[in-house]
This record gives sequence, C-alpha cells and structure tokens, in this order.
Amino acid sequence: MSFNTFGRVFRFTTWGESHGPAIGAVVDGCPPGLPLGEADIQPFLDARRPGTSRFTTQRREPDEVRILSGVFEGRTTGTPISLMIENVDQRSKDYSEVAKAYRPGHADYAYDAKYGFRDYRGGGRSSARETASRVAAGAVARAVIPEVTITAWVEAIGGDAIDYAKFDAAEIGRNPFFCPDPDAAVRWEALVDEARKAGSSLGAVVAAEATGVPAGWGAPLYAKLDSELAAAVMSINAVKGVEIGDGFDAARLTGEQNADPMRPGEHGPAFLANHAGGIAGGISTGQPVRLRCAFKPTSSILTPVETIDRDGAAAAIMTKGRHDPCVGIRGVPVVEAMLALVLADQKLLHRAQCG
Amino acid sequence: MSFNTFGRVFRFTTWGESHGPAIGAVVDGCPPGLPLGEADIQPFLDARRPGTSRFTTQRREPDEVRILSGVFEGRTTGTPISLMIENVDQRSKDYSEVAKAYRPGHADYAYDAKYGFRDYRGGGRSSARETASRVAAGAVARAVIPEVTITAWVEAIGGDAIDYAKFDAAEIGRNPFFCPDPDAAVRWEALVDEARKAGSSLGAVVAAEATGVPAGWGAPLYAKLDSELAAAVMSINAVKGVEIGDGFDAARLTGEQNADPMRPGEHGPAFLANHAGGIAGGISTGQPVRLRCAFKPTSSILTPVETIDRDGAAAAIMTKGRHDPCVGIRGVPVVEAMLALVLADQKLLHRAQCG
Amino acid sequence: MSFNTFGRVFRFTTWGESHGPAIGAVVDGCPPGLPLGEADIQPFLDARRPGTSRFTTQRREPDEVRILSGVFEGRTTGTPISLMIENVDQRSKDYSEVAKAYRPGHADYAYDAKYGFRDYRGGGRSSARETASRVAAGAVARAVIPEVTITAWVEAIGGDAIDYAKFDAAEIGRNPFFCPDPDAAVRWEALVDEARKAGSSLGAVVAAEATGVPAGWGAPLYAKLDSELAAAVMSINAVKGVEIGDGFDAARLTGEQNADPMRPGEHGPAFLANHAGGIAGGISTGQPVRLRCAFKPTSSILTPVETIDRDGAAAAIMTKGRHDPCVGIRGVPVVEAMLALVLADQKLLHRAQCG
Amino acid sequence: MSFNTFGRVFRFTTWGESHGPAIGAVVDGCPPGLPLGEADIQPFLDARRPGTSRFTTQRREPDEVRILSGVFEGRTTGTPISLMIENVDQRSKDYSEVAKAYRPGHADYAYDAKYGFRDYRGGGRSSARETASRVAAGAVARAVIPEVTITAWVEAIGGDAIDYAKFDAAEIGRNPFFCPDPDAAVRWEALVDEARKAGSSLGAVVAAEATGVPAGWGAPLYAKLDSELAAAVMSINAVKGVEIGDGFDAARLTGEQNADPMRPGEHGPAFLANHAGGIAGGISTGQPVRLRCAFKPTSSILTPVETIDRDGAAAAIMTKGRHDPCVGIRGVPVVEAMLALVLADQKLLHRAQCG
Repeated sequence: MSFNTFGRVFRFTTWGESHGPAIGAVVDGCPPGLPLGEADIQPFLDARRPGTSRFTTQRREPDEVRILSGVFEGRTTGTPISLMIENVDQRSKDYSEVAKAYRPGHADYAYDAKYGFRDYRGGGRSSARETASRVAAGAVARAVIPEVTITAWVEAIGGDAIDYAKFDAAEIGRNPFFCPDPDAAVRWEALVDEARKAGSSLGAVVAAEATGVPAGWGAPLYAKLDSELAAAVMSINAVKGVEIGDGFDAARLTGEQNADPMRPGEHGPAFLANHAGGIAGGISTGQPVRLRCAFKPTSSILTPVETIDRDGAAAAIMTKGRHDPCVGIRGVPVVEAMLALVLADQKLLHRAQCG
Repeated sequence: MSFNTFGRVFRFTTWGESHGPAIGAVVDGCPPGLPLGEADIQPFLDARRPGTSRFTTQRREPDEVRILSGVFEGRTTGTPISLMIENVDQRSKDYSEVAKAYRPGHADYAYDAKYGFRDYRGGGRSSARETASRVAAGAVARAVIPEVTITAWVEAIGGDAIDYAKFDAAEIGRNPFFCPDPDAAVRWEALVDEARKAGSSLGAVVAAEATGVPAGWGAPLYAKLDSELAAAVMSINAVKGVEIGDGFDAARLTGEQNADPMRPGEHGPAFLANHAGGIAGGISTGQPVRLRCAFKPTSSILTPVETIDRDGAAAAIMTKGRHDPCVGIRGVPVVEAMLALVLADQKLLHRAQCG
Repeated sequence: MSFNTFGRVFRFTTWGESHGPAIGAVVDGCPPGLPLGEADIQPFLDARRPGTSRFTTQRREPDEVRILSGVFEGRTTGTPISLMIENVDQRSKDYSEVAKAYRPGHADYAYDAKYGFRDYRGGGRSSARETASRVAAGAVARAVIPEVTITAWVEAIGGDAIDYAKFDAAEIGRNPFFCPDPDAAVRWEALVDEARKAGSSLGAVVAAEATGVPAGWGAPLYAKLDSELAAAVMSINAVKGVEIGDGFDAARLTGEQNADPMRPGEHGPAFLANHAGGIAGGISTGQPVRLRCAFKPTSSILTPVETIDRDGAAAAIMTKGRHDPCVGIRGVPVVEAMLALVLADQKLLHRAQCG
Repeated sequence: MSFNTFGRVFRFTTWGESHGPAIGAVVDGCPPGLPLGEADIQPFLDARRPGTSRFTTQRREPDEVRILSGVFEGRTTGTPISLMIENVDQRSKDYSEVAKAYRPGHADYAYDAKYGFRDYRGGGRSSARETASRVAAGAVARAVIPEVTITAWVEAIGGDAIDYAKFDAAEIGRNPFFCPDPDAAVRWEALVDEARKAGSSLGAVVAAEATGVPAGWGAPLYAKLDSELAAAVMSINAVKGVEIGDGFDAARLTGEQNADPMRPGEHGPAFLANHAGGIAGGISTGQPVRLRCAFKPTSSILTPVETIDRDGAAAAIMTKGRHDPCVGIRGVPVVEAMLALVLADQKLLHRAQCG
C-alpha cells in the first residue's frame, strides 16, 4: 500500500504540492453508472475554498476541478476518475528564510530528516492545500453512498465550545465557522479576529455525524470501522486526536452508564443511547456514526520561535506568509470528505463479502 | 487488504475465536537473521495473561506460544512466522441466552446484522482473547526495532487519574494495574474491587511512549505515523479514542503555546517541548513518540440491560460469564504490541524508500 | 502487500516449511454462511497427496487438514479461516551436503544470497510441500464459486503430448497422471518410470479450464483477469510459463484467424471460437476460461551437477532424498486451486464494484 | 488493492481514456533525491509514440509528458510524481457503429457485461493508448535502478522469427520493428506492409532481458519474481502468454538438460547456462533476467466479422479507424517499462526486508 493512497476497494490517490502547477486525485474502484460531473464536486470545494472570509488564509484559489477521465456522457464508467485542480495563486515570495531554517511544529525538519531535502515553497506536500484533493475525491464518494447524510461542524475553537442545547444544523452554513450554535459563532468572530490580528493561531475541535449508515458496514478487527475512521481523520494535516462516540468520556463511565440499550423498533432495534457512536465490534449498528477530532493550532505564527537552521545552528523564525488563523475551520469539509471516503469503501467491501 | 491483516511490508494476520481450539498470528516480511524463540515472546504474553490477579477475568489460560514456521536454528529466516496459542480453558457453559438475545454494547447485534449469524461462544472473534495474538506478533516486531524502547501504562481508571508528579516507570511492573503512580495503584485496588463485586465495569485510559525512534519514520499523508498509530490502537477491542502528543488538549492551545522550539543538540535538534508527541508532518522527529487511548468499560455487566432478541422482541440480558472488570488494564501489553508493530513496519518502509 | 499472501478481498496467507512441525493457510474475507468442514477440503488434498503411486515422491504424508477458526456449526462465519496440516514424515537424514553446497536450479543459492542463510531441510519454504496449503485454501474458494466448475489435467510430459481428439474428462481421475487421453497415460507410465529409475526428472504442461464463469469478472488493467491468473499460476513452484487461451499460438495468427465471432445465443452471445480463453480486455466473456502452464523438470536428480559451496569453492552435487520424477503431475490440483482462488476473489471484487 | 495500480512499495496508478483530454500516471514511493525531469522520460515515450512509421497506427500524438508534482529543483522529493500526457489527435469520427455492436476480440462486450455501458470512443480505457502512461512511469522506475540495463526486442511477427545467430543489439534501434536481426527486419517490412494493406493484423513475440540485477531480489512465494513479472507483462493489452527463461521449452527437458551448473566466479557464482531466466525459487540469481511474451493480433481488422449488437441481434462489423497492423511492435517499450517497474519495486522491497 502506498503512502498517498487511501482505501481498500474504493481507493483514491492524491498528488501535488502547494506551489506546483496543480494538485489532484485519482479515484479507483468507483461503481459504474453513477451520475457525476464537475458540478457535483465543485460545491464541496467551494465550501473548503480559502479566501472567502477574513478568518481563513488570504490565498485566492478558484479551486476549479476538472474531471480528466472515468466519466462518459455524465456517468462514471468504472475506470479511474482523474481529478485535477490548478494552482493559481502561488504568490512569488522570498523563501530563503524557510528554506534555511526549520519552523517548529511544521514538517520542515522531519521532511529533511527523512528525504534529505524538501520542497519548501508554501510547505510543499505538507501544505493543507492537499486537502482540496480529498474534498474532490470525497464528492465522488458521496455519489456511492446516496443513502448516507454526512454533516460536520466546528465544536470548539481555542477551548471555547458550542452549547449543544443551541445546536441548529441550519446554522452551520450561515457563518464562516461552520458553527451550529449562533451564539458561539458571534463569540468566535471576536476570538479568531484577535488571534488573526496578533499573528497567532487557535486549535479547534471538529465533530461529524453520518446518518443513514445501515447496520453491517465495517469488519473485525484491523478493518474495524472505528479504526478506518481514525486512520482517515488522523491523516488530515494538523489532526492529533480522534474519538468515536463518547471517546475519552467513555473511559470515565461504568458499564451501566455506557450501555446503549435496545428496544424493538420498526426497522431493526431502537437504541436508547449512542455512546458507541454507531459502531459495535467494529461494525455499524444502524445508529448515526459519530466522531470528533482535534486540530492543533497551526505553527505558522508571527511570534518568533527558537529553532535551528539546516546546519544545526541556533536561529529564530517567524512565519510571515498567508495562513489560516484557525486551520480547523476549513477542516470541516475535509472531515466530511474523509468520512464519505471511508463509508463508500466500507459499503463496497461489505457488498464484496456479504453480497 | 484483508480485514484481519495489519501492516504494509512487515505484516501480521491474526485468526481464532475465544472458544475455538486455538488462536494465532502469521507474521510476514520479517527481516532474516534475527534471534527469535518462544522464550522471546512468552514474557509479553505472560504480562497480558488473564487470571493472574482478582482484577482480571478468571479464565485460566497458560497462553503458551508455539512457533510453527519461519525460524531455523534460533533465527528468523525471512519467511512467514506462524505463531499458535492453544485455547485451554473454554469452560463449557450454557450459551442459550447469549445466542438468542443481543448484549447491548457488544458486537452481537452488529455481527448478526453483517454476517447473518455468529459464533456466540465467549464472543467468538470479537473477544479480547484475540489480543493475545497481537501481543505474540508484537514480540516479533520488537526484535526488528532493538533501538526502540516501548512503555505503556494505565493513566486513569473510571476517571481517577494518576499524578504525573509521582510517575515512576519502575512501579508499572509492581502492581496488577500497570500503574506508574503507587498511590493511584492503592486507590484503584479499592475502585476495581468495588466494580468487580458489583458486577460492574470501568473504563480506562492507557498511555504509551516509544523512545529511540529516529527522525524520519512515517510518511505523508495517508501513511502519516499519527494515522498508522491511530488505526493500530483503535483496532484494539474497546478502544474508542486516540490522541497523539497533546491530542485534544492541543485544540485548546494557541500556536505559541503549542510550539516545540528547537535548540542545537548533540545529535540533531534538542527540542524544548513535545506537544506533537514526536511526530511532525506525519514523520517522526526523534523525540519520544507519545500516545494515549481510551478503553470503554466492558458491556459485560451483571445489571440487566434492556435489549431485543434475534426475533426483534423485547428482552433483558445480564452477562454472567468471566469478565475483566476493567478491560483497559490488560490493554497495556496490547497497546505496546501495536506500537511495536507499527514502528517495525515503518522502519522497514523508510528503509525501502530512503535506503 | 506481503510476500506470502495472495488475493485482494478474498485473500489467503500460507506459512510453513517442508520439515517444520506443520504448514497452513489463513483465508480471510470469505463470505459468511457457506457450508464448510474438513470433509469438504480433504478430497482435494488427497488428490495432491504424495506417496500414492510410484510416480510421485515416496514421502508419506496423510495431509490431514484441521480447521482451527472461522467455521461455526458447519458454516463459515466471515472471520479468518485457519487451516493447518501437520508434517508427519520429515525423515531424519543427513543434510550436511545440501547445507554446504548449492543445488543448481534449486532456490538454495538465491535464498542464501537474499537472506544470508536458509532452512535447508527438504528445501524449507521453497519445497513444493507448501502447495498443500494452497490446495486447502482452494477448497474454501470453491465454496465461494459454486457456479464454476474447474478441471485441470496434464497435457504433456517431457514433450510427449496428449491427443485432444482422444480427450475424455472422465479419464483424468483414472490414472496417476491426471491424463485425459488413455493412450498417453500408458506411454507416460513407461516414460516416467524410466526417468524415475535413472534418477532423472521430466517437465510437464498442465492445462486448465473453468466453465460457468459469468461475463464480467476481472477488471482493466492491472487487475486484468489474464494478469491475475498469470500471477497465481506463476507463483507455483517450478512453473516458468503461462498462457491464456491460445497464448503463444495467437502470436502466429492473423486478426481474422484469431477472431472469436459472436452469434445471438440464449443467454448472452454464442461464441464461434475461444482463442481468447474466455477473457477479453481483462474481463471474462462468459466463455470457458482456459489456461496452460509449463512446469520445469525438478532439479533434484541423481546425476552429479557442477556447483559451488557456501564458500564459493567448486563442488559437485547430486540430490538423493525423495523427489517427484515429474513435479508437474501433482501440480494439477494446485493449478485448480489457484484458479479457484483467483475466481473467488474476482467474483467478490466484481460484486464490490458493480453490485 | 485497486484495479489500476501496480506495485507494492514503488507503485504507480494510471488513468485516462483514448479520447479523453489526457492520460497519466501517479508514481508513489519513489526514493527521494533522484535526478528527474521531463527530458529523462520523453525519449522512452518517443520510442513508443505512434505515427512514426507506416507500420504503426497513423494517429499523431506528440506524447509530451508533464511532471506536475513530486520533483523539486530537478530531483524527486519522495512524494507522489504526477505525470500527464495530453491527448491531441482524438480524431472526430462517427462511432455509432462501434457504440451499437461489439467488435469480437475487443473488450467491447466484456465491458458492457461488467459495467452496463462503456466509453466506446477509440476503445476508451481498453485502448493501447494507456500504455503511454506505463512508459512514462517506467522511465521513473529506471532512475531507481541505475545498476540494471533493460533491453527488449521483437522476436517474431506472424510466426516469422529472428535468427538468434544474427542477433545484434545495435540493430534494434535502426528499424521500425525493434528487430535485432537485420535480415528479419527486411522480411517483416514486406510482411507487415501486406497485412496493413489487406486491413489485417499480425501477432508478435517480444523478448526482454535485464542485466545487472543482483542476486536476492524477489521473494517466495506469492511475490516470486517470476510471478510479479508475469502479472506485469500479462497486464499489457493484447498479451496472452508469458515465459520466464526457457518457459514452455523447459517442460520438454529433463532435469539434466535444464540444469544451470555453477562454477566459482569473480563476484558470486559463474553460471554455465541460464534456463531459469535468472530466477530460482522466485529470487534473482545474478544472471540476466529473461522473459518472452506473446501479443495477439489486434482484433481491429477490415474484414467483416460476425457479431451481435447491444440488443443481442446478429450483426457484422469491421473496424475502420486507425490501428496498428502489429500491436506487438510498439509493445517493446511497454515491456521494457513494466520490467523496470517490477525491478524497481523489488529492489526497494528487498531493501525493506533485508537492509
């Protein structure tokens, strides 16, 4: 299995760097006959697109996707779907500082330690720009699982969390934070503005839910649905923690408290709780699949940080460039995409084994 | 990639059910010439072995491992290493209740939904008994990475956490809880005893650290070391959350607080902090690799829980049998094993690509 | 993907050496609910079993298979099926000669060059004994594709080919050569006897056919059914050539001669020829799938051959031991097994992608 | 493992159809720091390029490759290398006939049976145009194995074979047939011209050799070097047979005749023969790796062939369009590319396991 491919039978491979001519994804194993065009993909890219508010990076990318293969007369053919997005706004700048010294918290030092050198322009392959490819591939995945509805949102920024009593899914699209709590959205405006002006950055928690997943997707043990989702979400830049269902909270509970009792329901069981996040024994139960993940604050800050240069000498570095003050915000469409990609793969895998 | 195989070039496949004649693992891709015998594996199995204290299940299994292939004259040959552990104490009992009704929180319903039926004896494939195979395979992995030292411990039981100011690695082996804080170990004795007597169960948090990992293991993006570890740990029964480094805490920090500044060091950089858990951009930095994971309380409790039977009718069920009051405790050697398995694989992958 | 695993979603992993305690296979991804017991596997092992006539090795192995997991109450559960066959007749002998010098044509030198040392007892992992594991796994695969009938036979031994005008499938089981031409079987008796008495060995050609394969299995391009079959068959010890349909003969034809014209048929097209061996564009057409493969003569002969020893010095070696005078004969059940394993995998893959 | 990806750690994925806007390949797992630019790839594409003589299809494609990622300042970065080739000469034509009826021997019927419909323009994904992507990826692979020299040639066209006594490697580049025997090249000119004028097509045999492969690449059993090569070569359009070393000829030999005796040599053994094609036990021996493969004649001929249409009714079809009278000729650079891709992968895999 290669380093830039994800999935088992529904797979995608991404390529591209922040400042190369383009980025893209190849989706393989897609069922044939699904209606698909650029217009089905573009809205998801637009949701992730930078430069749409002052709370994200000011890099201006139209992020227009082209389908180069695998679609004929508006339907998927079953052969690889090549998706390409041109990079437009690679602002020419002086990279000499970044090329010479390592930005703490960035991939700079680790890349050099591994590969001996790196494409330092805009972070190269380690840039969050890569996530546009995921979002494009995720839009294809959604076509594979029309029975599933996926929604993600920001749950907390810099430790300031939403109030779930005020949760309103309709709010998510109404503010630049993907925030389902209108009051929190107001607070975050001030919070993120402050960080942005100070050249600082903030961490965030993103939560997601997939409804409509039937019981039976996933598998024991190394393909546990929990495990697949954890790998998928943790592969996103800046994510450092993942929880399925109650996650770490479950570790504080007793078995009685953590039980998800079942009652007879119309279609399968009616569950009285969902501590498990819709997954038991690695297999979906028919309840909503729920996860949360933690985005660290980006290391790109204006405050100088102690570091070393390529020769090992002491240095200090600050990151000027254009950056997201809270990279978790634009992580929302990416988390949705990864959820779609895992579920599409698991649907096909389940069909392979169990008919 | 199959459902019961883990790894990319150093891979293992496990097989076996709780109440079948045996369980085992096949390790493939192991470098040749490594000294290996049953005696190198047995101590890790002994650490995980049930029935050694009143705080774990009372099932008595010697867990004696046999190497059936891949080793010649005390050294690995480079061909598949087949490891087998016989099941000895499959106590005959009446399973009619479990066969008929679903234990909430268990895999019972999900397995039936997926496969149409299930081996209900002792949980079948979904039993934590499978983790013995992981521990055996993990002992082989350790032989591949002699430069790395892996230590895991229980950090919290039922919400009662250790005090890191009292952390003493030498304590971990001295109590039945893998607890590095002797005071917490005393408290947990009462806590787990109480749960055990009440027929209840408790969740736990397990933490782990790998020192000696050189900079450069891992890869962007879908093989990010964070992602590989998350998948590995989340594949363990009952685990519902994973954090690398500061994990969810990082989501509450600013970029300044979360920075891991570097100074010139003797061998590569000297880091002034390790919020990142030893991984940046998906690649190890040379710092200790750190992770935490959450074990939910087992659903096997004596309190009757509302459920349905195979025909969809209302029922109530309590789980008699022999069970761990806190399954996270015996998760410690399993987490260590998974960490070893990922790191061995990544070492070889790094060697493949970068020589 | 590991070295000892084959398949994509229906996968098997084999382990074991000629003179270890046992050999075996783990089958993963098998559909649940299929009737399966040792009695369904044993007949195929018996067909391959050595020591049943004077034309095969005189090693006496009962080759009794045990199912250690993945089957419950006579049906597959969908979890890994562990199959084990104990080695019984590892005759103790003096291996000092083989340990010291390389048998030309054997894997001896190549293994040492790769791994630095080798398990020289009976060829270790490179022994054709491994093929028993394939045959056991292949019997499981047959349960996945009840619509398919697989038949293989020996087409030629030492250049003496059958006459297809005399082809009688019923003859295949009536002679020790899996020979469908009774006259050829008589000739081969003398031919193989002569080689056996001279301590020589003979090559063979094995042909196989699978009927009942529906149109649509396989995929472009790197999973072309031709390619999957070629990999599968070429992975068998001693096989050095594979042809699909007309194979090399097709290279001598014109497009007109090689065409497989179609006429309207009752169920899909009626083909007027089958030069393509039932596969076009890498996908089955509904015609019988046909392949041939070449087994080289075993290098284990009584005539001394020039060689070198482990220190690089000149030596001569002859192979005493017990060996097949024509290893291709017992290759017949192995080729059938590999065909079954590929087709089972492709059936499930097709179902995954195309429903 | 997906359908359009090949390789284990050095992997490539191809995408694109005959008449889409472009085709391409993504190469993943490439070692970092290798010098690479378009100029290193273009010559191999030029060798395969159509329209350079009257003996190949008259489609005119410049086949100019662009590197879109994975290379920085002239060196590979270790991240995915995206290669794109625009389609330029998709001549607009009337496809109504091909869309409606199946061309026997083509993938038409099989694709429809599998996917329900197909991109019929120029054969869509099943067109030999895809092989340009392989050749581009193969050029990257060559950079990974500078120690290896790969040469392929046409050995026979339509049953007319070269005389190996006249073999001259320097001739291969001097005629439009990649023919190492100048006399055969003269004969083939007439032969292929005749087929071309008659609207017929011819099969061909391509042979290849890799020198400089050290002993130790490959692995038992399902990753046998023979097996990997067979899969790779058989995945090429129109290939229906593969032989390693003596292949089917070995099936006619005795063990004495087929032996490759060894004598002490300067660097490892000196072999006195190479029946095995440089591979024993699935592992390279240090001798030249040799293989042959059979290309069927293309089914695109001007003679009408009986067929059925999409509704199952009787029809007759002839293929007008632009086609190769002998597709095996342009197969030569493709076979070389596949050999390079397998060997690069095996080199890295060997390094992974054996250091």
